[in-house]
Amino acid sequence: MKGKLGRGVALVGAGACKFGAYPRQDSRDLFVEAFRELVASVDNKGFDPTEIKALFIGNYSSDLFEHQGHLAPILADWVGLTPRAALRVEDACASGGVALRQGVLAVASGVYDVVLVGGVERMTALPTEAVTDTLATASDVLYEFPAGFTFPGFYAAMATAYAARYRMPYEALMHVALKNHTNGAHNDKAQFGMTIREIMDRRIAKAKEKGGLVPSWEDEFAFLRDPVANPIVAWPLRLFDCSPITDGAAAVLLAAEKVAWRFTDHPLRVLGTGQASDTALYGRADLTSLRAAREAASQAYAMAGVEPSRIKLAEVHDCFTIAEVLAVEDLGFFPPGEGWRAAMTGATCRDGPIPINTSGGLKAKGHPVGASGVAQVVEVWKQMRKEAGPRQVGGEVDLALAHNVGGSGQTCVVHIFGGGDCG
Amino acid sequence: MKGKLGRGVALVGAGACKFGAYPRQDSRDLFVEAFRELVASVDNKGFDPTEIKALFIGNYSSDLFEHQGHLAPILADWVGLTPRAALRVEDACASGGVALRQGVLAVASGVYDVVLVGGVERMTALPTEAVTDTLATASDVLYEFPAGFTFPGFYAAMATAYAARYRMPYEALMHVALKNHTNGAHNDKAQFGMTIREIMDRRIAKAKEKGGLVPSWEDEFAFLRDPVANPIVAWPLRLFDCSPITDGAAAVLLAAEKVAWRFTDHPLRVLGTGQASDTALYGRADLTSLRAAREAASQAYAMAGVEPSRIKLAEVHDCFTIAEVLAVEDLGFFPPGEGWRAAMTGATCRDGPIPINTSGGLKAKGHPVGASGVAQVVEVWKQMRKEAGPRQVGGEVDLALAHNVGGSGQTCVVHIFGGGDCG
Repeated sequence: MKGKLGRGVALVGAGACKFGAYPRQDSRDLFVEAFRELVASVDNKGFDPTEIKALFIGNYSSDLFEHQGHLAPILADWVGLTPRAALRVEDACASGGVALRQGVLAVASGVYDVVLVGGVERMTALPTEAVTDTLATASDVLYEFPAGFTFPGFYAAMATAYAARYRMPYEALMHVALKNHTNGAHNDKAQFGMTIREIMDRRIAKAKEKGGLVPSWEDEFAFLRDPVANPIVAWPLRLFDCSPITDGAAAVLLAAEKVAWRFTDHPLRVLGTGQASDTALYGRADLTSLRAAREAASQAYAMAGVEPSRIKLAEVHDCFTIAEVLAVEDLGFFPPGEGWRAAMTGATCRDGPIPINTSGGLKAKGHPVGASGVAQVVEVWKQMRKEAGPRQVGGEVDLALAHNVGGSGQTCVVHIFGGGDCG
Repeated sequence: MKGKLGRGVALVGAGACKFGAYPRQDSRDLFVEAFRELVASVDNKGFDPTEIKALFIGNYSSDLFEHQGHLAPILADWVGLTPRAALRVEDACASGGVALRQGVLAVASGVYDVVLVGGVERMTALPTEAVTDTLATASDVLYEFPAGFTFPGFYAAMATAYAARYRMPYEALMHVALKNHTNGAHNDKAQFGMTIREIMDRRIAKAKEKGGLVPSWEDEFAFLRDPVANPIVAWPLRLFDCSPITDGAAAVLLAAEKVAWRFTDHPLRVLGTGQASDTALYGRADLTSLRAAREAASQAYAMAGVEPSRIKLAEVHDCFTIAEVLAVEDLGFFPPGEGWRAAMTGATCRDGPIPINTSGGLKAKGHPVGASGVAQVVEVWKQMRKEAGPRQVGGEVDLALAHNVGGSGQTCVVHIFGGGDCG
């Protein structure tokens, strides 16, 4: 890897719509909402959106979710940016992060000074079975699909392999879910903006209202162990180990460092970007780590010239709780086999040494697949600028990382952002 | 538009599979065939494919055509390039050209020295109605689909508007089809590698064999006017005005100019690249020209610093015959309203002043939608290197252009290539 950008690229704006279930809205509606928030996020209030010269859109499958192909020029049109170049980038659930990377490379190439990177997915209008089926097309459809694998199954296989090798108790995964819901409870854009305690209490209150049998969980752990409250989806993964089905959109504004001053006095810098691929899960020798994640992270760290230990905050791809455990190891925050302990000891909590998924992660914030990689960067933007409100981490976040995974790890893309002045 | 590449990018290899109907093959099979030809095309026989550091894949909708998402890492794996970064780029039928552009920008960015750009589509396994429906998702599905528009209808509307404004006789479109089939007859990779005369003669011979009523067409024009031999698809467009449904793949190898010598002594240079978007057809004031094509061409010409009159050869997006007429005007080869005359006078024939679609175009070569934009560049590669065999144009092709359209013109991407030495 040469791995150096021809010129510096800065992050100068970011926005997202509230994630949730909007089956009667279209992708373009969600995108317009994110775009409006992006425009409002630009410090320089004289910002004219037509300065945006191209749109890079992460979207997994508007084809199957909405029976709409060729989405990118529609989105450009809907925000008044015709005839700007607009394209869709697809790498399953890493589509957003990979779109970001294409936007970064496009600015670094010298062709564009200002581009928008968007991510969008409208998923909830289909029945759950159809959503699961659509997501399963991100596997190898010739070899894995016929074996009955859908995504909870892939990550369950990883969880099983990991637990067996490293003696992880199931409680570790509960801690991931508890933490991410606790973070999400402070995120007004989250689909499930409640702690698991709050969800549990609400269930109890509802049962009381109805006058039926009132469950008496001792605490959240008892709630999460209850096979009715938290049923097995694919053993050992239960409902609260899985990210939800979500509609949402996010967008960020990139500019060449030399023009970043036009948008803000406080741009963030894209210090590192890395991307890698892997074979589908059926062909892998090891299920306890994602090779593409390690490779993408190594590229991004090398480009940024930083060590994992210097990262102050990370948004990682927790499509399932086990994925976060793997991620914190693949990114070098913890040694192999120690990721689950980090979850249990609180090392990854908002006030821990390396806060992970302060946004609530895919787990609580929601996972509109093509948007997730971009939404991660929206959180990085807010945290690094101290605009994260009630979930703001303490201290200066001068280095942050976003880690976005496609499928069962066939794609991974990692970005590292730094604060400080641009040229 | 800044419009300058941070560093020079060269084309150093190109390959395609034979286009056709392979309903029992998978996208990956077609791609492997194109990849093998690409590897064989590299002049330096010591070329090691693992020098390829990333794959940019143009694909319109493996989702709907094959129920396979996340195609890019599978293709990388199938040609032995895991864990290289692999991503899919989608802009309907312009996916291949837009993928090429992303590859160019990625090399220009300084991050990659050597990348592969591929295009692939497997379409024929579905019933024709399902293919038409899938292609129609490249329109605006909220506004155009419910009005009953599919793609022959969109281009029929353009043909009608154009014919009315510029008094084009239907014969002009026949000339486009005749020319492209004549070119395709010399292309062993073409799906329909026969002149229309040969197709007609074959029909007559078959009818004689069967012993039934033997048609007696006086010439190809009579054949094309026969409503049975050449039925109306969407008035005024008939069967021979439409590109076919095709399976196919193509791939090209890009390298930074400074390392191009490692692959060949005769690289081609990417002199210009442009891309633009437009509203869906329903929102346009004018149907006789594609705004996105004019805009993309203007960007590419400006970057290359050349005038349209200097281009020696072009592959243009003739998804329908009328599209070629619009293209030669949008690209500045002929003034508005003169494109149809160019077709009738033979100006765009292989031995004319500006040969258009020497490959046979989408019309005869076939139109595997995501692959078409890349396959155009394969033809440019062959013609500029004088490797086009029986369809080689006379004289030096020192400047050539590729023009790739998505949908009804919501996306257009244009590339200009030059010969001569690299750094």
